[in-house]
Amino acid sequence: MISEFERATASTLVDGVATAEIADSWGTGGPAPNGGYLLALVTRALGRVSAHPHPMTVTAHYLRPAAPGPATITTEVIRSGRTLTSAQASLFQDGKERIRVLAGFGDLESLPDDVRTSAEPPVLPQVEDCFEAPDSFKRLVTLLGHADLRVDPATAGWAAGAPSGRGEMRSWFRLADGQEPDPCTLLFAVDALPPVAFEMGVQGWVPTLELTVHVRALPAPGWLRVVASTRNLAGGHLEEDVEIWDSKDRLVAQSRQLARVVGP
Amino acid sequence: MISEFERATASTLVDGVATAEIADSWGTGGPAPNGGYLLALVTRALGRVSAHPHPMTVTAHYLRPAAPGPATITTEVIRSGRTLTSAQASLFQDGKERIRVLAGFGDLESLPDDVRTSAEPPVLPQVEDCFEAPDSFKRLVTLLGHADLRVDPATAGWAAGAPSGRGEMRSWFRLADGQEPDPCTLLFAVDALPPVAFEMGVQGWVPTLELTVHVRALPAPGWLRVVASTRNLAGGHLEEDVEIWDSKDRLVAQSRQLARVVGP
Repeated sequence: MISEFERATASTLVDGVATAEIADSWGTGGPAPNGGYLLALVTRALGRVSAHPHPMTVTAHYLRPAAPGPATITTEVIRSGRTLTSAQASLFQDGKERIRVLAGFGDLESLPDDVRTSAEPPVLPQVEDCFEAPDSFKRLVTLLGHADLRVDPATAGWAAGAPSGRGEMRSWFRLADGQEPDPCTLLFAVDALPPVAFEMGVQGWVPTLELTVHVRALPAPGWLRVVASTRNLAGGHLEEDVEIWDSKDRLVAQSRQLARVVGP
Repeated sequence: MISEFERATASTLVDGVATAEIADSWGTGGPAPNGGYLLALVTRALGRVSAHPHPMTVTAHYLRPAAPGPATITTEVIRSGRTLTSAQASLFQDGKERIRVLAGFGDLESLPDDVRTSAEPPVLPQVEDCFEAPDSFKRLVTLLGHADLRVDPATAGWAAGAPSGRGEMRSWFRLADGQEPDPCTLLFAVDALPPVAFEMGVQGWVPTLELTVHVRALPAPGWLRVVASTRNLAGGHLEEDVEIWDSKDRLVAQSRQLARVVGP
């Protein structure tokens, strides 16, 4: 039984070039598929040429919008070391490069289990007490058919037209078909929430220029908690930081993106 | 009058390939030059093929150690758009790639001047009340001949063998020859402090795997304040976040790196 996420991020690799079909139901309301979904697709293809199994640091530059339909992903192994494979991929559609990805792959299972952290897991209300998007919204934001998001009501004011003004959003996350998370799921999850800028009262489009994700540990089965925050909206740009915590209270991913605020 | 920093990051560009001389006095105690210095060198060369003047988002993967001496930097303009040029560079020495850089260049002077921020500028003691490395240390860490660092004594316990255990370091920064900061200076400054892990009691070597810098505004003349912090040391890796504030209390750069803890 193949999961929806595995099917939507699958590709066929021949001589280092992957061909894939970008699915049409992983959108956020506009014509372009979700950036995290695309990052998972590209990184999963790139992982197939890597000597190490797990993405540990992944940077994507979003050059042009991608669209549902056929895509070609070229891959390059830059260096294959003892503990890390460095590699690069480019996603093309209609002969134009849409996304470039630079990544380091390692083996998360082989890492020592020392932890010295001052990071505190977020406290959210129970899943059933959180905000689930209404069906009308799910029809628009099609990725919600695959990602089960339950947003802490204290950070969902924007959805009722009353943003809190604080630059934070917290949500439960799991794949809707029950598939347990793997590292590529985290690449999708860091970008699956609505732009945290909405909770600061920003409206309109917030396209991602650059997104970097560090996967710090293999996620345990169960719900993930996703915390998105922004501190500095300036010069028409903002950063969005995301942390993902797993069911064992471990910080499994950290990401930051630089986005541009466009309109309204 | 050319500054030390300009001289050390200069290159000659012919047909998209830059040749440079990696200087031998920008080290941190080991044989390899400082990673931020190298990033500034590569990015400055890459900026010469870009249609836009300022690095806005720069990611470096450190593949192999570099060394003082001749280097070749290949460049590629990936896409030249209206507001952003996306470009890539590789630094080679002895035929081996040492660093790969993926960057977006824009025009920081053309950005709107809206600011909506919850980020607070750090409060440091006066420059003259901060900790300056003794001459014995400066002879070892040669970059201190070019970077005037004055560390908040509350975050310099490691230097006296008594780390605070908190993962934070705060410092004043300016180029020692009085040259005012530009965007490439910020790429150096985000990596010029000692590893913040030292203040958590970690000893040994903390090589950077990946470093991403967002330059958010042109820095005003004067001293910069650099705040480095880490929250999560786990699985033998840690992230190091750096913010740089200018003399006008603006957040001019944000960076994050993923580093491996080796030894002691």
